[in-house]
Amino acid sequence: MTEMFATPQSMHFADPLPLQSGASLRDYSLSFETYGTLNAGKTNAVLICHALNASHHVAGVYAGQDKSEGWWDNMIGPGKALDTDQFFVIGVNNLGSCFGSTGPMHTNPDTGRVYGADFPVVTVEDWVNAQARLLDALGIETLAAVMGGSLGGMQALSWTLQYPSRVRHAVVVASAPNLTAENIAFNEVARRAIVTDPDFHGGHFYEHGTIPKRGLRIARMIGHITYLSDDVMNEKFGRQLIAATQEGAPREYFYSTLEAEFQIESYLRYQGDKFAEYFDANTYLLITRALDYFDPARTYGADLSHALARATCKFLLVSFTTDWRFSPKRSREIVKALLDNKRDVSYAEIDAPHGHDAFLLDDARYMSVVSSYFDSVAKEVTP
Amino acid sequence: MTEMFATPQSMHFADPLPLQSGASLRDYSLSFETYGTLNAGKTNAVLICHALNASHHVAGVYAGQDKSEGWWDNMIGPGKALDTDQFFVIGVNNLGSCFGSTGPMHTNPDTGRVYGADFPVVTVEDWVNAQARLLDALGIETLAAVMGGSLGGMQALSWTLQYPSRVRHAVVVASAPNLTAENIAFNEVARRAIVTDPDFHGGHFYEHGTIPKRGLRIARMIGHITYLSDDVMNEKFGRQLIAATQEGAPREYFYSTLEAEFQIESYLRYQGDKFAEYFDANTYLLITRALDYFDPARTYGADLSHALARATCKFLLVSFTTDWRFSPKRSREIVKALLDNKRDVSYAEIDAPHGHDAFLLDDARYMSVVSSYFDSVAKEVTP
Repeated sequence: MTEMFATPQSMHFADPLPLQSGASLRDYSLSFETYGTLNAGKTNAVLICHALNASHHVAGVYAGQDKSEGWWDNMIGPGKALDTDQFFVIGVNNLGSCFGSTGPMHTNPDTGRVYGADFPVVTVEDWVNAQARLLDALGIETLAAVMGGSLGGMQALSWTLQYPSRVRHAVVVASAPNLTAENIAFNEVARRAIVTDPDFHGGHFYEHGTIPKRGLRIARMIGHITYLSDDVMNEKFGRQLIAATQEGAPREYFYSTLEAEFQIESYLRYQGDKFAEYFDANTYLLITRALDYFDPARTYGADLSHALARATCKFLLVSFTTDWRFSPKRSREIVKALLDNKRDVSYAEIDAPHGHDAFLLDDARYMSVVSSYFDSVAKEVTP
Repeated sequence: MTEMFATPQSMHFADPLPLQSGASLRDYSLSFETYGTLNAGKTNAVLICHALNASHHVAGVYAGQDKSEGWWDNMIGPGKALDTDQFFVIGVNNLGSCFGSTGPMHTNPDTGRVYGADFPVVTVEDWVNAQARLLDALGIETLAAVMGGSLGGMQALSWTLQYPSRVRHAVVVASAPNLTAENIAFNEVARRAIVTDPDFHGGHFYEHGTIPKRGLRIARMIGHITYLSDDVMNEKFGRQLIAATQEGAPREYFYSTLEAEFQIESYLRYQGDKFAEYFDANTYLLITRALDYFDPARTYGADLSHALARATCKFLLVSFTTDWRFSPKRSREIVKALLDNKRDVSYAEIDAPHGHDAFLLDDARYMSVVSSYFDSVAKEVTP
């Protein structure tokens, strides 16, 4: 397969963005990338929304950089399930992120001080509004599709409610109509780990020259457990010891509470360490809070069917059997609410062992479902 | 029902206790309580093994102290499922605990310094050996039954393997033959939260006049999530906001990443705060490690049936349908391994919504299963 090269771009917006909280961002920039070519009728644009720790770098590679594939490069590219030979695909980094778009480590124009903890709380709805302005600037009125997994799926769903006339299709993968108490609980523990790290300094750690790495590590370790299934963890790690001999009797335990003893421990420590090197603590707080707050049925008396009545586009929902973070049950709630409104919905429940992470991984049936769906979208939008 | 009063006792052991790790405890004390009366034949003793944050105070109340019920007081007492009018019940606090038995906050007789992180790693097997010495001292050769839930169930199971001739019955509730990778993962995150708290000081925080409360809080919050079921969390907390109005439209969000917004958040914070006030950080590390290490099949090529061949007593296994920490599947593994050895096994899978916590709660069927079982044990041991 030919390599596709990606080039990050940035667009500045001088008009203030009013936020759901009542606050506003005076001005801001969005980082984005595009792949493929916008057709003359501007009918083949597909917007990709990202989840927790991802970015606008959705597909392709950066020239001269090894292992620089975008986070959904297995899904998106020339000849892939979402075919960039047919579609003009846009990846955009969300406000509050630490990967280019205006976020907590940038300067607050109102104070001349780095935002830090003063960066306003942003919601899924705010992100969608910012994304809509990017589309305006790109001259795109209507999306052939909006697509996302997990928190990205929530944005895709919200697009269909906030801008129903601007979306023809929504592809919502491994997502949920809101978080359960358990989901919120895991987010909260991660946030408390960060916030109570003495290096956090109330979110103004940049000024102190510190990084709350201890908290970030714990947050990532917790996250990782919830992204994987019990089964895949047992298969991948089980009770295997680190530095275990390959033959004969099992080695003696180290009998230590501090040293890693089991492979799952060193795996989680490694993931935590890596994450703490590149991810911003305030961004982590903001993004988990956006997850907590998302709940389109909230102002409709918790009636999801009522809430989704505004959506008019066609839908593809995908879930994964071993995903216990956003289980198939949660996707089915969305499917049911859309069907209650007599919307056109396709739904695939993929039997995959990888838990929530499955939405980022290769799975023949998953890829084929998405590929077929976009084949039919392509037929609709070809000029 | 008449109140039963409990009196904590302590026994000192001057003989060194060799530990599985190769280390040994030069001398040590065990805190314990007893309820009911040992019969003349000394045939009616039941040993209760405790789980993570519990103690020897299993049943009854302390005279003059409100809300001082033992942690399994709903199960054990006069006329209760485990009837102290018929049985002589012993609760014992494990080595390494922070509730009376020799542990990390006591002085190491070899150095004159508080043990702290130098307290040796103790295992389920070590605890059972220490418990056996307590029984020796009490003049009890054979237990009518050994009983425990969760980690306590592991001790009960280990009794049947280490001292098969000293146990007539084992009651193993909400337990598992070992931890899964996911179980270990949760323990490890909790330990890292404690160990990386700057107030931990490598486990010698007593000397620094600090307590790693931040880490303990996080550890407890994580633990709590795993003790509850998703369903019961949704039923109890759902997405309810704190300080929510009782009628009309839902209140506005606070739009804060630092303030508690949802009831599940303030619940977890409260649980974490409370725990950090009374629990010892080194004890937490030791006890979670004992959980990780327990694996009777390990030296039998991971063949549980082979490992359990040593057990000769009769068994009652109980599990709870919504327990995702130690799911019914794990209890069934033990049941199968015992049946492979043609042992006498009763097994009850209780349909309860409360997750792992169910083993501590009242449930009519659960209590009735245990009660019936002990009725038949009573008939066997009555002199």
